[in-house]
Amino acid sequence: MTTSARTNETEETTPFEEKRVVSGIQPSGRMHLGNYMGALHNWIALQNTHDCFFFIADWHALSTNYENTRNLISNTREMLIDWLSLGLDPEKSTIFLQSDVTEHAELNLLFGMITPVSWLTRNPSFKDQQEQLDNRNLSMFGFLGYPVLMTADIALYRATHVPVGQDQLPHLELAREIVRRFHHFYGPAIPEPMPLLTPTPKLPGLDGRKMSKSYDNCLYITDSAEVIWEKIKTMVTDPQRVRRKDPGNPDVCPVYDLHRVFTSAEERLTIETGCRTAGIGCIDCKSILRNGIERVLSPAREKRSEILSNPQKLDSILEKGAEKARYEARKTIRIVRDAMLLPGKPGHLELH
Amino acid sequence: MTTSARTNETEETTPFEEKRVVSGIQPSGRMHLGNYMGALHNWIALQNTHDCFFFIADWHALSTNYENTRNLISNTREMLIDWLSLGLDPEKSTIFLQSDVTEHAELNLLFGMITPVSWLTRNPSFKDQQEQLDNRNLSMFGFLGYPVLMTADIALYRATHVPVGQDQLPHLELAREIVRRFHHFYGPAIPEPMPLLTPTPKLPGLDGRKMSKSYDNCLYITDSAEVIWEKIKTMVTDPQRVRRKDPGNPDVCPVYDLHRVFTSAEERLTIETGCRTAGIGCIDCKSILRNGIERVLSPAREKRSEILSNPQKLDSILEKGAEKARYEARKTIRIVRDAMLLPGKPGHLELH
Repeated sequence: MTTSARTNETEETTPFEEKRVVSGIQPSGRMHLGNYMGALHNWIALQNTHDCFFFIADWHALSTNYENTRNLISNTREMLIDWLSLGLDPEKSTIFLQSDVTEHAELNLLFGMITPVSWLTRNPSFKDQQEQLDNRNLSMFGFLGYPVLMTADIALYRATHVPVGQDQLPHLELAREIVRRFHHFYGPAIPEPMPLLTPTPKLPGLDGRKMSKSYDNCLYITDSAEVIWEKIKTMVTDPQRVRRKDPGNPDVCPVYDLHRVFTSAEERLTIETGCRTAGIGCIDCKSILRNGIERVLSPAREKRSEILSNPQKLDSILEKGAEKARYEARKTIRIVRDAMLLPGKPGHLELH
Repeated sequence: MTTSARTNETEETTPFEEKRVVSGIQPSGRMHLGNYMGALHNWIALQNTHDCFFFIADWHALSTNYENTRNLISNTREMLIDWLSLGLDPEKSTIFLQSDVTEHAELNLLFGMITPVSWLTRNPSFKDQQEQLDNRNLSMFGFLGYPVLMTADIALYRATHVPVGQDQLPHLELAREIVRRFHHFYGPAIPEPMPLLTPTPKLPGLDGRKMSKSYDNCLYITDSAEVIWEKIKTMVTDPQRVRRKDPGNPDVCPVYDLHRVFTSAEERLTIETGCRTAGIGCIDCKSILRNGIERVLSPAREKRSEILSNPQKLDSILEKGAEKARYEARKTIRIVRDAMLLPGKPGHLELH
């Protein structure tokens, strides 16, 4: 990493710092198991191997929900509680709120100056989302610029790696292109972030479709053990297996898709054989799934009640996270300003 | 002005504060008399009647010159010296550098979330500039969003008035529309800025075309008295007046257009009569013009050498200006965040 002339403190580049991960999620309310497996599960593992910056992307939430911000404060709080209860650890990771670090907006502005509009309008996910959400007037400047802000989010911490699923690779490629374009004009200043391909299994919901809040088919992190069991009992299975004595086919059973995630390979073998031979019934099978899901949710529930008994701690976690994030962000802004030969040395960029 | 629940200090709204002006200029190098008459002349007058925030728009400069930032630091410095030498007074006005107040970028981001892309692509000056500067690849996201940043610049100080020439009215109208849209979603939070129509005479350059750096026909603020006189002597006049004894027509003489700005009405009457009757020659007429221009430039030269004898003061003027600007900017950001029901209370927004 190139450091600027103005950034003259000696930097010890440890191997750990060379593996810096940045990722964020929009605060869209309480998390379900699909959200958990899509991102958080990976984040929790990355905490032990990488220098991680995880943020609640409240500014990004505005790009599709600017008209309705009523729940943004409570959604942010809920999401933070979900993260912590599932095992995200503020002692290991830097956990913060995007809007607490104004520098995201500054780098967004600077990257916007060099990003061709055509890169943004051609972005397939821009087109897709516009079609999917065509009942809202989404052609906002901020929505169009979503990938620019995302690039700023990543580069602001000089991330070397970004955890992405296969489907998100084009987004990251766009971010890499913007960083390369920056280097083209102003020299190499910030790492080009590498994708860190993470497994993001699509979890089926209770009706067999993808688990999604909009389908009302979710198992929520906050559901009690009773609610989870009631829901699992109603979950659709292999439609061909009508009676207990009919053999089933795990390959077409949504319950089995959940087993792939929450049940050990060994147990899965027993289930598969039992299902295909009608050796076990659907309720037996679902009961094993419940155990697997409870291995995740039961400790999360305990942790949650611990958190809720001391809720002031939530504020202090975000405060400390923002402080750590801001330190790195300001360092980057100085590097970027120097590379771009910009005037001005605002006092708040002094590093203490 | 609506103040938010969080902004609970008592605010004394004085008539002076109700007349707050914001304006900025891109640092594009040394100023000529056309620049002076186009903006600064008005600013200097406004200092005595309004609470003025004047800024060097270095971030805006990137929207057309992102590829070449080599001169941005020196241009910024030159422009500040020009401003001060012509009479902009840091004791009266808040004079600062845009990029010293990161909050411009934050409000830009927030306004971008609610600004339809179509408002920006339809903006006539976007189309015009794209055509005029078609040799550069200008379709950058930041260039498209120029009016959004401009709106943020104005609203960030809760400006009530913006000095504009007739030709800039459409820009301000767009800013007013963005502010109204903000109010539509989040309630009235910031004043809708009113235009303050100011005279912006188009000054002819030495060749009779509009005075413009790109035509190389300028009288610069930094030109010595000798250079000014040498330039004026070469300036084109009424082409029909070939010999001294030919009568001239001031209505078609570019020199007379400068008299309209730099010479008193009384003297102009004498010149006009003298010209039409061949009572005075062009050199006599130009000599009077020189006197008028020197009434502006001579004190500016004195002030300039005073400034250059103590150049550290330039930094401290920008520092103090940024501090004052940041105070008001953070107040606005709190008002805006509260209105939008955004989470987060970053420490740097605390007002001291």
